[in-house]
Amino acid sequence: MGRIAFRPEGKTVEAAEGTLLSEAIAQAGIHINLPCGGQGRCGRCKVVVEQGKVTSRSTSRISAIEAEQGYVLACQSAVESDLQVFIPPQEAIVRGLPSEKAVAEVPILPVECDWHSRPLVQKLFLNIEPPSLSDNTTDFERLKRELARQHNVKNVLADLPELRKLARILRESQVQGDGWQLTAVLEMGTWADEDAPPRLLDVRPGDHTERTLAVAVDIGTTSNVVYLVDLDRGKFIDSASAYNAQISCGEDVISRILYARKEGGLQHLQRLVVQTINGLLQELAQRNGVDLSEVYAMTVAGNTTMSHLFLALDPAYIRLEPYIPTINHPLPVRAAELGLQICAAAPVDCLPSVGAYVGGDITAGVLSSRMFQSDKLTLFIDVGTNGEIVLGNADWLLSCACSAGPAFEGAGVRSGMRATVGAIEEVWIHAETHEPTYRVIGDARPRGICGSGMISLLAELFITGTMDKSGRLNRSLGTPRVRVGEHGAEYVVAWAGETEGQKEDIVLTEVDISNLVRAKGAIYAGFSVLTQSVGIDLADVEEVLIGGGFGKYIDSEKAIQIGLMPDMPWERFRYLGNTSVLGAFTALLCRDMRRQVTEIANGMTYLELSADNRFMEQFTSALFLPHTDTSAFPSVMRLLGKSRGV
Amino acid sequence: MGRIAFRPEGKTVEAAEGTLLSEAIAQAGIHINLPCGGQGRCGRCKVVVEQGKVTSRSTSRISAIEAEQGYVLACQSAVESDLQVFIPPQEAIVRGLPSEKAVAEVPILPVECDWHSRPLVQKLFLNIEPPSLSDNTTDFERLKRELARQHNVKNVLADLPELRKLARILRESQVQGDGWQLTAVLEMGTWADEDAPPRLLDVRPGDHTERTLAVAVDIGTTSNVVYLVDLDRGKFIDSASAYNAQISCGEDVISRILYARKEGGLQHLQRLVVQTINGLLQELAQRNGVDLSEVYAMTVAGNTTMSHLFLALDPAYIRLEPYIPTINHPLPVRAAELGLQICAAAPVDCLPSVGAYVGGDITAGVLSSRMFQSDKLTLFIDVGTNGEIVLGNADWLLSCACSAGPAFEGAGVRSGMRATVGAIEEVWIHAETHEPTYRVIGDARPRGICGSGMISLLAELFITGTMDKSGRLNRSLGTPRVRVGEHGAEYVVAWAGETEGQKEDIVLTEVDISNLVRAKGAIYAGFSVLTQSVGIDLADVEEVLIGGGFGKYIDSEKAIQIGLMPDMPWERFRYLGNTSVLGAFTALLCRDMRRQVTEIANGMTYLELSADNRFMEQFTSALFLPHTDTSAFPSVMRLLGKSRGV
Repeated sequence: MGRIAFRPEGKTVEAAEGTLLSEAIAQAGIHINLPCGGQGRCGRCKVVVEQGKVTSRSTSRISAIEAEQGYVLACQSAVESDLQVFIPPQEAIVRGLPSEKAVAEVPILPVECDWHSRPLVQKLFLNIEPPSLSDNTTDFERLKRELARQHNVKNVLADLPELRKLARILRESQVQGDGWQLTAVLEMGTWADEDAPPRLLDVRPGDHTERTLAVAVDIGTTSNVVYLVDLDRGKFIDSASAYNAQISCGEDVISRILYARKEGGLQHLQRLVVQTINGLLQELAQRNGVDLSEVYAMTVAGNTTMSHLFLALDPAYIRLEPYIPTINHPLPVRAAELGLQICAAAPVDCLPSVGAYVGGDITAGVLSSRMFQSDKLTLFIDVGTNGEIVLGNADWLLSCACSAGPAFEGAGVRSGMRATVGAIEEVWIHAETHEPTYRVIGDARPRGICGSGMISLLAELFITGTMDKSGRLNRSLGTPRVRVGEHGAEYVVAWAGETEGQKEDIVLTEVDISNLVRAKGAIYAGFSVLTQSVGIDLADVEEVLIGGGFGKYIDSEKAIQIGLMPDMPWERFRYLGNTSVLGAFTALLCRDMRRQVTEIANGMTYLELSADNRFMEQFTSALFLPHTDTSAFPSVMRLLGKSRGV
Repeated sequence: MGRIAFRPEGKTVEAAEGTLLSEAIAQAGIHINLPCGGQGRCGRCKVVVEQGKVTSRSTSRISAIEAEQGYVLACQSAVESDLQVFIPPQEAIVRGLPSEKAVAEVPILPVECDWHSRPLVQKLFLNIEPPSLSDNTTDFERLKRELARQHNVKNVLADLPELRKLARILRESQVQGDGWQLTAVLEMGTWADEDAPPRLLDVRPGDHTERTLAVAVDIGTTSNVVYLVDLDRGKFIDSASAYNAQISCGEDVISRILYARKEGGLQHLQRLVVQTINGLLQELAQRNGVDLSEVYAMTVAGNTTMSHLFLALDPAYIRLEPYIPTINHPLPVRAAELGLQICAAAPVDCLPSVGAYVGGDITAGVLSSRMFQSDKLTLFIDVGTNGEIVLGNADWLLSCACSAGPAFEGAGVRSGMRATVGAIEEVWIHAETHEPTYRVIGDARPRGICGSGMISLLAELFITGTMDKSGRLNRSLGTPRVRVGEHGAEYVVAWAGETEGQKEDIVLTEVDISNLVRAKGAIYAGFSVLTQSVGIDLADVEEVLIGGGFGKYIDSEKAIQIGLMPDMPWERFRYLGNTSVLGAFTALLCRDMRRQVTEIANGMTYLELSADNRFMEQFTSALFLPHTDTSAFPSVMRLLGKSRGV
């Protein structure tokens, strides 16, 4: 028997020699993550043996440095003596809804820029002598005169809505025993042209110069995200996100484009996305005590179709060969033109697209990922319904879009669902029993499987030999988990009884697997063609940047195992979160960065894969796990050798 | 007996010696105008005695040159022998409604300018290669590229509504076996800034470059006028006019401003004037086979209040001391912003004001009258509800506005009416019988008296001694025409039985006279103060330009007789018609002239009379007919001496 003391909990248990440390921990009533079910594969049950001795069966996932510091895997270590064990804080397994998640993170400006010296929107306080018979200059010309006198701001323009309220606001700003005291809000030139005349966005009685608010928006096909930003300090204040209400009109861009062809369909889609954004704005306003009419600028990143639908531009020809958008560089419009509930005159700027299938979300991603400033050969990928891929560095950028299909977003897969509460987001399968262990978003009972769950599940099925490299389930394993159901062969991830009241078991069918394999194949083929096009080997890529709301939750190890990502050291992968909204945030704050994103869009070469024979060839080769060319996946082959005793 | 042959009619009559020629003419059944009823005062019955001899009692109105050519007054000449008499074409006495009148006139550009070389709106024909996989530039960027390639027009901007239809229009412009053939309509910079980026106003399949349409508009408090213009040729095409529908909300600017204070009142007034203009546009469209969506620019001249109401700018402070408009130089807006039914993106430009009571109609008038280019000391006057006056020449301009009140527009006068069918527009009173002769617009039975009728009537009452210089009617003349009615002393112009079914006689009361005298006094006082201000004698004025829809019908002789106009040779007076719409027409066609009108507005000094003691002094002196200072009206005094035998 040994006496085991756990830090920092301060609990103690007695355990027989040879007892697994993970069991002793459970005996002490301490929670520890064991997603792979104690197979020593996931590495999540790392603990530090501070005093005493254990024997470890496996040290996979333990680096040399960690080993020196006393790290072991609890599920692989047997008690040999009295112990003092430190249990590191466990990763919270409750993953919130996108909106909660976003709130928890405080993004900072991903790139350096001179946002402060030349702000797009300026608030200027004015003290104006009211008119008299001897000085009967009009209201607007008086305002202009004082802006020039007091702030050296000249040639100010104004649109009708602002002029219509000017007379009233000026007189409401009368201070007892003094003149008119008010704040003028000005757009200082445009994003594109700093020297364009300043434009009056608003006038308000009193001094409102303490802060200037603006918003950065990501319009995803599935999710929309809004960042509330303090323009004066260049700071993120808060964020909110929600599903794009357009989902009711189609899950992917193609079905939305088809919906837009209906009578009034385009206008309906436009209203839906604006409603979604207005809802998020209201949520932010309420939480932060903000008057939305004091939000003076908006920058929007979205794919080309989303930008078109947001502006109610006809998207019809994006879908049809030769895939022609109306515009790649949308001109800024006023918030009121779109029905956005911020200051009516606020400029709304959609970041530029490269083409029909590489949009403002990608140029934003290249901006915020700093790929455009990098010396390293970089691969940027945004996996969503489409996988958009950019290869390059500070000198050149080459992009393509692979129609991966919506499988990784939960659509077109029998038990698929979006990454929300009840979605299985990680799966581990026991190599011998073929029994699964899974983690569910929101720590709830499962309702389905989301994208990251499917990658994880696919990898586990493959690594444990439950499925072969062509995606066929092994029906001779003698486990009830693999069966032939109504829809053909399938693997049962969760029995109906375990679920949140589902009538059917949660399964992955061979048809689902085929869809997923085609999706990953398309993306990998994209990588291959891009690198081939410039005569580079995929292994030469020095950094893989993964952006997009989806990419944030992909486990690169699993992604490599199924051949979705190239096989390279994990440290070359960087998960950047929502690079689209981060790019919008960056462009909102900084004129140089806004210009930069235009240069990114203009400078990026777009490779149309539908017209490229190499793509079909590469795609076909990628329809195996991990790939027909196994030499490209040495780490996976090593693992398979280990796991299957090959 | 003499035999009198009339040319060109070819009629002949026999007449006793001593018969008045006018009677012989009537005997022959030939029409001749005798508005003064044969008193020899009006000079309208001029005929040429080509052969034979007559004796003339009076030769007033016959110049020395005319006398040499044989001109005599028919009503003052007695037959002495056989005669051959030429009767010149008689002035048609049917004066049409404003709209019919305007149609009859074909205005030409009143000033010279280089409108053709730098047009504001250009139509450019394009033949564009449709997109392909190898040239997948977007629709808008393709359009821009081809505008640059084919027409060297660069940096084109477009607003959302034009971008929204671009994809469809481009594809509709596909010509069988060829590319896209279409017309792009561009605003080439702005009125203010020629170098501003061109803006796409429209795209249309096919070639529409044969002509480019635009409109010039005069928004009068009472009447609105629209000119349809061919921009390419700098030519007037047609015009239409109608009463401003805002009249239902008040006759003058002050009552409109008060109406605008009501809940929704301003918006209602804005809609009314736009409805009026849209109605005129439709009339023009129908008559000329024009599609209104092909009208690509609008220039508007109106007084400051009308401009504010047209743009729905708050006019409240125009009425209150110190009389502050929101803006003097309205920025161009798009037609759709105002609800105007021309091309949605068409720029709509309101000509600049000088101040609360000297508006764009006056700067337009100074422009179209060419006063701003004149070497002569010029007095420009626009008599409407207010009398706006400008004194100056090419070097300087001084303006004021006198609240004349609406008396000359028929309001505030018992039998007053606007200058439309049934309005008595000219009156002659017999010096002995005090019986009136009148002329009615439309050759109809009378319904009331319009402004020019009132000037005429007032002058006749005064000249014939029916009324004294202080405006009191002489009740001891023994004529039933002067009586004391319910409303005090009055002169009966037409008995009820003569009218178009009126129940009451058409009269001018002493209260009416007092209102009219105050109105003319205010305007004359304006002249006096303006000239005094610059140390000039009113007699030094070399030219008097009379503009405005009303001014067109004022008889300068009568106007001098009542002291409304300064006493100077008639040839110094020039009647320019609607100088406001002519100014809008000029500014629409020519950038230089549009710039010029801005300079006119900026350079004009405005004298606020309400704050000027001299005005009250001059006003009081002008409350007599023709004026307290009779030495300023020598011609009137001479006439009075003659007419009354003094």
